[in-house]
Amino acid sequence: MTSRFRFQIEARDGRARTGRIFTPRGEIRTPAFMPVGTAATVKAMLPESVAATGADIILGNTYHLMLRPGAERIDRLGGLHGFMNWGKPILTDSGGFQVMSLAELRKLSEEGVRFSSHVDGKRHMLSPESSMEIQRLLGSDIVMAFDECTPFPADEPTARTSMELSMRWARRSREAFGDRPGHALFGIQQGSVYPELRAQSAEALTAIGFDGYAIGGLAVGEGQERMFGVLDYAPGMLPDDRPRYLMGVGKPDDIVGAVERGVDMFDCVLPTRSGRTGQAFTRRGAVNIKNARHADDPRPLDPDCGCPCCAGYSRAYLHHVFKAGEIIAAMLITWHNLHYYQELMAGLRRAIAEGRLAAHVAAFHARRAEGDIEPI
Amino acid sequence: MTSRFRFQIEARDGRARTGRIFTPRGEIRTPAFMPVGTAATVKAMLPESVAATGADIILGNTYHLMLRPGAERIDRLGGLHGFMNWGKPILTDSGGFQVMSLAELRKLSEEGVRFSSHVDGKRHMLSPESSMEIQRLLGSDIVMAFDECTPFPADEPTARTSMELSMRWARRSREAFGDRPGHALFGIQQGSVYPELRAQSAEALTAIGFDGYAIGGLAVGEGQERMFGVLDYAPGMLPDDRPRYLMGVGKPDDIVGAVERGVDMFDCVLPTRSGRTGQAFTRRGAVNIKNARHADDPRPLDPDCGCPCCAGYSRAYLHHVFKAGEIIAAMLITWHNLHYYQELMAGLRRAIAEGRLAAHVAAFHARRAEGDIEPI
Repeated sequence: MTSRFRFQIEARDGRARTGRIFTPRGEIRTPAFMPVGTAATVKAMLPESVAATGADIILGNTYHLMLRPGAERIDRLGGLHGFMNWGKPILTDSGGFQVMSLAELRKLSEEGVRFSSHVDGKRHMLSPESSMEIQRLLGSDIVMAFDECTPFPADEPTARTSMELSMRWARRSREAFGDRPGHALFGIQQGSVYPELRAQSAEALTAIGFDGYAIGGLAVGEGQERMFGVLDYAPGMLPDDRPRYLMGVGKPDDIVGAVERGVDMFDCVLPTRSGRTGQAFTRRGAVNIKNARHADDPRPLDPDCGCPCCAGYSRAYLHHVFKAGEIIAAMLITWHNLHYYQELMAGLRRAIAEGRLAAHVAAFHARRAEGDIEPI
Repeated sequence: MTSRFRFQIEARDGRARTGRIFTPRGEIRTPAFMPVGTAATVKAMLPESVAATGADIILGNTYHLMLRPGAERIDRLGGLHGFMNWGKPILTDSGGFQVMSLAELRKLSEEGVRFSSHVDGKRHMLSPESSMEIQRLLGSDIVMAFDECTPFPADEPTARTSMELSMRWARRSREAFGDRPGHALFGIQQGSVYPELRAQSAEALTAIGFDGYAIGGLAVGEGQERMFGVLDYAPGMLPDDRPRYLMGVGKPDDIVGAVERGVDMFDCVLPTRSGRTGQAFTRRGAVNIKNARHADDPRPLDPDCGCPCCAGYSRAYLHHVFKAGEIIAAMLITWHNLHYYQELMAGLRRAIAEGRLAAHVAAFHARRAEGDIEPI
């Protein structure tokens, strides 16, 4: 156990890097995928199962937790780690993104965002200061600065105004966070698809100084091509020796492309949400278990996968329990999907360490191009 | 592994017995509680977790499985054990009870019951012969004879007519079952609350000869007092050297009273269904996790319980995830409830083996009378 937060790059391949983030609660191997545990649970999973997939860190949502069960309550109960029985690192978002997408009667000002809870209608305020306080009460290991996620599309003046507000909020976040050994604060780059704005944002954040840097304002509907367009230059604007986190990304091929472009950390609801809607990720692409062609198929989702779902259950079984509305369908497919995502990250880490990322990525795309195994 | 079905009583205390049922798929310690796995899943549980609670056998529902995914399909896929990844014994009911309570457009005749599926409206037939065939296709270890569960209340002539039909069906079930080494067929005693009819039913079944005997037609609304009234005499009418199974029972105190009266096997949806509705069973009685008094309670459901739910999670957490509609609430509370039920059975088995059942039962009731732990 180390008592401070530290990032160590162990190998590089092109712009891609692999390494380790050290925290008092454990190491995070990068590039890392963080399963999303919105309301103090990675949906349909026990935390020991999440750890068994290889996850070193999970993400918690400040907005959801502040409303229910409440940050003060979680603090009284000893913090989010003990509350949800997850002893490894937790990153919490700032609440900024979700307050704008989920809350009602929002009013954004220089101070922050006033809103009504989507749970019970009560009035709340999120600001750099209150977000830092809530994330402290939760006991988060990696705290995110409070920002405005610039919507897409945004014209240049709109994107500039939004980015500049986020930079003022970044400074207030840094000041409110203070000095908390063993806990990290990440700044968030904004600037939409405008290189000049991204550069100004990176410069502002670097001047303030953070333990890590997120690339914000992507995965908001701009499409993979535009996202990769930004990722061709944005990560390089951020300090090389700090972790870079692409928020809310993404599909497997999004992640692969972002890792190639120098991103170290990811989070996304896709593997867990898809687990509940019957979509499974495999090395050969997505499988929709609802499809009738699986009803008599004795084969697992992926014959080469070592997860408990593939070790114990056929597509026919998964099809049946999904159609019957059984909880075990979500449990098994979510487990498989999180296992797949962690295997994806492990494969990328190994490839970077061994200097064969380009070949690894080519093989990744070739296997997907083959498509799902033939119906029996 | 033994190749035949065998019951061995190892100790007695009053009318209660403890022992072991040997089957090719493993031993069943009696008195035994069988979790219900209606649609090829014990709801919200992985099968290895069901086994970890101490369950030696689970129950599958013929009616549900014949409709979805279909017995022929399960047979093609290698049988119910492999399909649902449960290698230990499975008992299947005959479908007789559920066809009368769930199916539509039912028509009962001497031949059997014609009905429409509640899933897709298709017409089906359940008879002694088709029930035996379906249970064979499922690969059930303990097969139940096809019977009519006499509704309660029923006057004596109605109960007699129903019982006599069930006895004719019992004979047809026996003939259709044939000789299947390693697999058992249980007959089902009917006769409602009439001792004379219960005696005639027991005599008819014994003359046919079964590997075990169920006490049917109870737990259908008659109340615990009347049920215990029947159990005061009905088990003694059945062969002493064969397992006695009380179908669909029940609450913890129902089970305790039935074990005192000589019953060896039980099944009930209560621990699993309650797990999904937020009711937890503890040694001090039931706990409703929805209740606001748990919102800040850092203590587990039962401080003396060794299940993973009580080892890792507070009442406050369970309250939160239940209120938030999270799947983990059902997963954890179901696990706790099944653990509680298996601990209940293990305690009864030990008490019988050590000849101290009366004191054990007195302590069971005394602890429940104390009520739940005081709110903090």
